[in-house]
Amino acid sequence: MSLQSTPSAERIHIGLFGRRNAGKSSVMNALTGQNLAIVSDVKGTTTDPVLKSMELLPLGPVVFIDTPGLDDEGELGQMRIKKAYQMLNKTDIALVVVDAGEGLSPLEETLIETIQKKQIPYLLVFNKSDTAKKQDLPAHSIPVSAKTGEHIHELKEAIAACKPADSNKRIIGDLIHPNDTIVLVTPIDEAAPKGRLILPQQQTIRDILDSDAYCIVTKETTLTHALSSLKEPPALVVTDSQAFGKVSKIVDESIPLTSFSILFARYKGNLQTVAAGAAALDRLKDGDTVLICEGCTHHRQCGDIGTVKLPNWISSYTKKDLHFVFKSGTEFPDDLSPYAMVVHCGGCMLNEREVNYRMKCAADQGVPFTNYGILIAQVHGILKRAVAPFAEISALFS
Amino acid sequence: MSLQSTPSAERIHIGLFGRRNAGKSSVMNALTGQNLAIVSDVKGTTTDPVLKSMELLPLGPVVFIDTPGLDDEGELGQMRIKKAYQMLNKTDIALVVVDAGEGLSPLEETLIETIQKKQIPYLLVFNKSDTAKKQDLPAHSIPVSAKTGEHIHELKEAIAACKPADSNKRIIGDLIHPNDTIVLVTPIDEAAPKGRLILPQQQTIRDILDSDAYCIVTKETTLTHALSSLKEPPALVVTDSQAFGKVSKIVDESIPLTSFSILFARYKGNLQTVAAGAAALDRLKDGDTVLICEGCTHHRQCGDIGTVKLPNWISSYTKKDLHFVFKSGTEFPDDLSPYAMVVHCGGCMLNEREVNYRMKCAADQGVPFTNYGILIAQVHGILKRAVAPFAEISALFS
Repeated sequence: MSLQSTPSAERIHIGLFGRRNAGKSSVMNALTGQNLAIVSDVKGTTTDPVLKSMELLPLGPVVFIDTPGLDDEGELGQMRIKKAYQMLNKTDIALVVVDAGEGLSPLEETLIETIQKKQIPYLLVFNKSDTAKKQDLPAHSIPVSAKTGEHIHELKEAIAACKPADSNKRIIGDLIHPNDTIVLVTPIDEAAPKGRLILPQQQTIRDILDSDAYCIVTKETTLTHALSSLKEPPALVVTDSQAFGKVSKIVDESIPLTSFSILFARYKGNLQTVAAGAAALDRLKDGDTVLICEGCTHHRQCGDIGTVKLPNWISSYTKKDLHFVFKSGTEFPDDLSPYAMVVHCGGCMLNEREVNYRMKCAADQGVPFTNYGILIAQVHGILKRAVAPFAEISALFS
Repeated sequence: MSLQSTPSAERIHIGLFGRRNAGKSSVMNALTGQNLAIVSDVKGTTTDPVLKSMELLPLGPVVFIDTPGLDDEGELGQMRIKKAYQMLNKTDIALVVVDAGEGLSPLEETLIETIQKKQIPYLLVFNKSDTAKKQDLPAHSIPVSAKTGEHIHELKEAIAACKPADSNKRIIGDLIHPNDTIVLVTPIDEAAPKGRLILPQQQTIRDILDSDAYCIVTKETTLTHALSSLKEPPALVVTDSQAFGKVSKIVDESIPLTSFSILFARYKGNLQTVAAGAAALDRLKDGDTVLICEGCTHHRQCGDIGTVKLPNWISSYTKKDLHFVFKSGTEFPDDLSPYAMVVHCGGCMLNEREVNYRMKCAADQGVPFTNYGILIAQVHGILKRAVAPFAEISALFS
């Protein structure tokens, strides 16, 4: 039950990378005690990335990503290698599997450089240690034999030791002080869940309480009244992106104002990327194509924003003759070269990891990437104000 | 999936009642097209209530409660009949199944009186209509044949028509006015879910927003500061029960104060019962036994309150020599006669229906019933103040 009930996005993703026949699938099977991937002595058995959810003690629920060999050949082989590299963008812990009898080659060295650049924790797994002659191993290395099971237990321990520590990042707690009054503007529209609050609002309220501050929760329609009920102006106002235009007119310029989108992009470590992506709006040229993407197909409301409002806002903001391409669900193109920028939905809980993957793929290809909330702030001309509380981001707009 | 994922508490509960061999199980099977209960021509096949979750179109997800025959015999039979009657306390829609060939007897008439007293919507199902001679049927009647399927479709439609309408009850919306400032006091202790708000707090915030009012959300530790930041006193303060003592000292007597427990008891229609139950504390005598019950076994925090704090508070409030009996999980006694009163946990989402059932069983037996939150207010001497916003309840304490 607990295995089945852990959403994929919350599992540690362990990617296996290496040459064909290094034994990536065999190592995965040895780790899990299950026969999951087709394993053979024929090179290149794994031709597409294979994702498998399972329990890996002592780490807990994980997803293994088995990838095609990095030495695959031909045009198809090149595409597979590219795909394997893209899988690094889904990987929390990378296992570089090496045939101990063959040792490291430039292929692994290039891979390791990329892994280091992406700051992914990794291990070098020297497989087939039972048949290889003894040798000195580089840092991060562990010799194993998937065949005999030798050192597989040690490999599990080493993987668990790579687990990223729970971060101390705060949504808003580091921006405020005890006894601060924070105002949260939470419009209630048809998209709001009946009788409840959406998770980002709950999380923000909770972080404010955890910081010994308190908050006023108000719709945009009662914001003026709520502000006038206070003896002193609030320390910060946070609004839903969709009410940004209206709220920015009500809240005096002297009061810091930001949005839930911006707080959460910052919390997830993406604010720099999505703010820079929004800034790219100013560089669009006539004839450019903008890719507008949604991670899911079930939000009718997103659909309306994505296919109608955003293109209108972008066109009237840039005054350029642009093409728009819409994608939803799983159809995110591997090749982003036709696009001048990517505008993606904020990504709900279920597909946060997928949105993160797409953002990293865009970065790899040098294509600006932003999200709905940040773009809405930019086209309303208030992104600069909304990122003012964050000095390092604010510099992008000076 | 949708069938499995609807929690039992949210399903419409349809109880089948009647004499042995009237065909309760057969009617249930005909309704659902499944062979769920053992059906035979031997009287009294169903000796214990049987609960079955299923999809019943056009109604949706339901639970059928098949009960023992009301004409069961012997001492054991009497106990089974009592149990069948108790099942009325879990029933949203009652089907009184009658053998059309035999017609109504005093047994069904007594049952129908009880159903009417409990205000449960019901239908008289004259089963075996294929073999019975034509007759005039009383109100609420429908002739069916479980055997041939005759009128089973009409019975489904009639059941769906009995479905209780979604109520217009509000948590707090009917107590407040547009632009009111409401203060919510939400202590954060170890029992609070990490990084979120508990559902009653979310629901209350949402109902305030839906009422065009707004709220200040604060811990009890910043309440004084939050109140002092306002130009005018708030229209209402709502606190978590556990902070009642502290909060009632901070909030001036001129400001209405109540608790989430009281709002939700009122929302669920139980406030009168649980307030009267708490008032029964004043009538306890030396030697009385108080039953303290928890609906679940997994809340460590409840355990501490139930088994340690409540007995201490009750003893020092009443100054009587009392016995306490603790029950948790499913072990709620059928016979409450040994107890002078029942104090029950508030009941989390999952077992709200069960708590409601237990409260009704206590009412049937004339045993006062209250919950933790209400009792905490009473032993702190502030229940009278906390129910002051509700005139009809307030009268209980004048």
